[in-house]
Amino acid sequence: MKKIINNPNEFVNDMLKGLYLAHPDQLEFVEGDMHALVKKDRKPGKVGLATGGGSGHLPLFLGYVGDGMLDGCSVGDVFQSSSAEQMHAVTKAIDSGAGVLYIYGNYGGDKLNFEMSAEMADFEDDIRVLHVIGKDDVSIADKDSRRGVAGIFFVYKVAGAAADEMMDLDEVARIAQKAADNVRTMGVALSPCIIPRVGNPTFEIGENEMEIGMGIHGEAGIRRGPMAPAKEIVEEMMNAILADMDLAAGDEVAVLVNGLGATPLEEQYLAFRHVHEILSEKKISIYHTFVGEFATSMEMAGMSVSLFKLDDELKRLLAKPANTPFYTQMQL
Amino acid sequence: MKKIINNPNEFVNDMLKGLYLAHPDQLEFVEGDMHALVKKDRKPGKVGLATGGGSGHLPLFLGYVGDGMLDGCSVGDVFQSSSAEQMHAVTKAIDSGAGVLYIYGNYGGDKLNFEMSAEMADFEDDIRVLHVIGKDDVSIADKDSRRGVAGIFFVYKVAGAAADEMMDLDEVARIAQKAADNVRTMGVALSPCIIPRVGNPTFEIGENEMEIGMGIHGEAGIRRGPMAPAKEIVEEMMNAILADMDLAAGDEVAVLVNGLGATPLEEQYLAFRHVHEILSEKKISIYHTFVGEFATSMEMAGMSVSLFKLDDELKRLLAKPANTPFYTQMQL
Repeated sequence: MKKIINNPNEFVNDMLKGLYLAHPDQLEFVEGDMHALVKKDRKPGKVGLATGGGSGHLPLFLGYVGDGMLDGCSVGDVFQSSSAEQMHAVTKAIDSGAGVLYIYGNYGGDKLNFEMSAEMADFEDDIRVLHVIGKDDVSIADKDSRRGVAGIFFVYKVAGAAADEMMDLDEVARIAQKAADNVRTMGVALSPCIIPRVGNPTFEIGENEMEIGMGIHGEAGIRRGPMAPAKEIVEEMMNAILADMDLAAGDEVAVLVNGLGATPLEEQYLAFRHVHEILSEKKISIYHTFVGEFATSMEMAGMSVSLFKLDDELKRLLAKPANTPFYTQMQL
Repeated sequence: MKKIINNPNEFVNDMLKGLYLAHPDQLEFVEGDMHALVKKDRKPGKVGLATGGGSGHLPLFLGYVGDGMLDGCSVGDVFQSSSAEQMHAVTKAIDSGAGVLYIYGNYGGDKLNFEMSAEMADFEDDIRVLHVIGKDDVSIADKDSRRGVAGIFFVYKVAGAAADEMMDLDEVARIAQKAADNVRTMGVALSPCIIPRVGNPTFEIGENEMEIGMGIHGEAGIRRGPMAPAKEIVEEMMNAILADMDLAAGDEVAVLVNGLGATPLEEQYLAFRHVHEILSEKKISIYHTFVGEFATSMEMAGMSVSLFKLDDELKRLLAKPANTPFYTQMQL
């Protein structure tokens, strides 16, 4: 295991210590628990936006806490849900009377704990909580079983902009749900990562193999096969996405090419060229392109492509500025 | 070679095609050569800022072309200098009468070609050109032989802000040179990368080895040894940096923890904690911390730490906003 760490069992705590020291003006934690992370200088009266999930995916999840995006994030151990108590601590801290929206990925532990947290917030604190669940990974046929992966970035972005405009909880939730319904993602993995506490690769894969549709925790994908040229890999991913989306000539999308960790930006741009070709052929126009590491699996090699179908409302909100320690955007 | 590419010989061209398609509002190329990259909507009358260098280091070098930073970049093949002709093409495009400043790393090919390009610009076009060379890598004892690595980001940032304020060429060069003189970097590499055209790792390193002080092209470092805890690795890097810098209690720095490619953000934050500890002990205060991939070697694992000693002028310029396809910063 070749990692720049100390005690593997303290990996997440050590990372969080560095995080709070690096961004003292932007982030803090509540109830003495570093795993209950909130934005500093929260806007009074605004709907609170929270996410949560396992560590090992930076910038996901906590990286999107900041101006114009989220207000808080409960942080789990590597690839594990945070506790309902941590979610509840975040919820209490970020509510200022307008209620709280939870936006999180479709994973068993996260769902269970966010539901428990919402019950606590309701019974104990009289905080109204709504839920929007990211299910963008088209590698799973059954829509309700789909994992939330990189596409949740778009949900955070537009919900954050909506809350920042002081829309009420129902309206922010409506927009977040529309965003979640309009985004699709497909990934490819080339190599595994190692959970520090475990010390072994999350899966094995041959020197010349790739796995199409693998999840960001190494969950099995659609098929494993020999490495192919970038053009073919992208075509396979785009075919799966487009087959699942209601996109016609003249429609407009935002594109996210996301690196899973070890795959260089150069390869992500190279892949985007083929995404662009395919969309151009179908006369689907690209409003804006995002390339980089938005949702990783530590040092896993591979990438994903997400398409986000836009309407005027989503486009307007996507274009608004944001400023978090991990993601800064000027007005588009 | 497990890369998401097509023909390895076309790697850089394919990457550049994707790049221009991804950022059509911000980037363009001149003289029909994708390797001569310039910013769109250049500010008339402003000193032009250019860099250049080999591919394979994104966001370095071309990633810092944009508002508040650089105006152009000549792009070489992987780990190779661009040609003097490409540099000259960029120079002509970005000069609007106020002259051009070249800011680049201390590598033989880059130096030779930037000198040739400056001569062409002088003789053929009557463009005045000055040079500032990044030599921030303290792993080499002789100061004039030091490589330019991640710390050049700070030189781009403050020079970009100075040029944006319409300072003249001599003044922008003075500030860029002061920034270059005030930055020190030290790195550690854990694994090699593969140049697509070559197909083999740039060097070999044992399963449990690291190399302190390795360059971003795999140049030999100070020592190779067994992997150590993060705390010890950071202490060794910081000792080398601090021994080379005139820093006293009460001084102020900016810190850059830079991932070389495969090393996750989590480990970079974990390492920053130890940087912070060491600076706190010495009562050196941190004005701002930058963490992420700023200068990579494709999929190499490892990281570097840079310290940038600030005075009021450098701090004011560092704080100004910037907006490139790869780097966006609000006013600090």
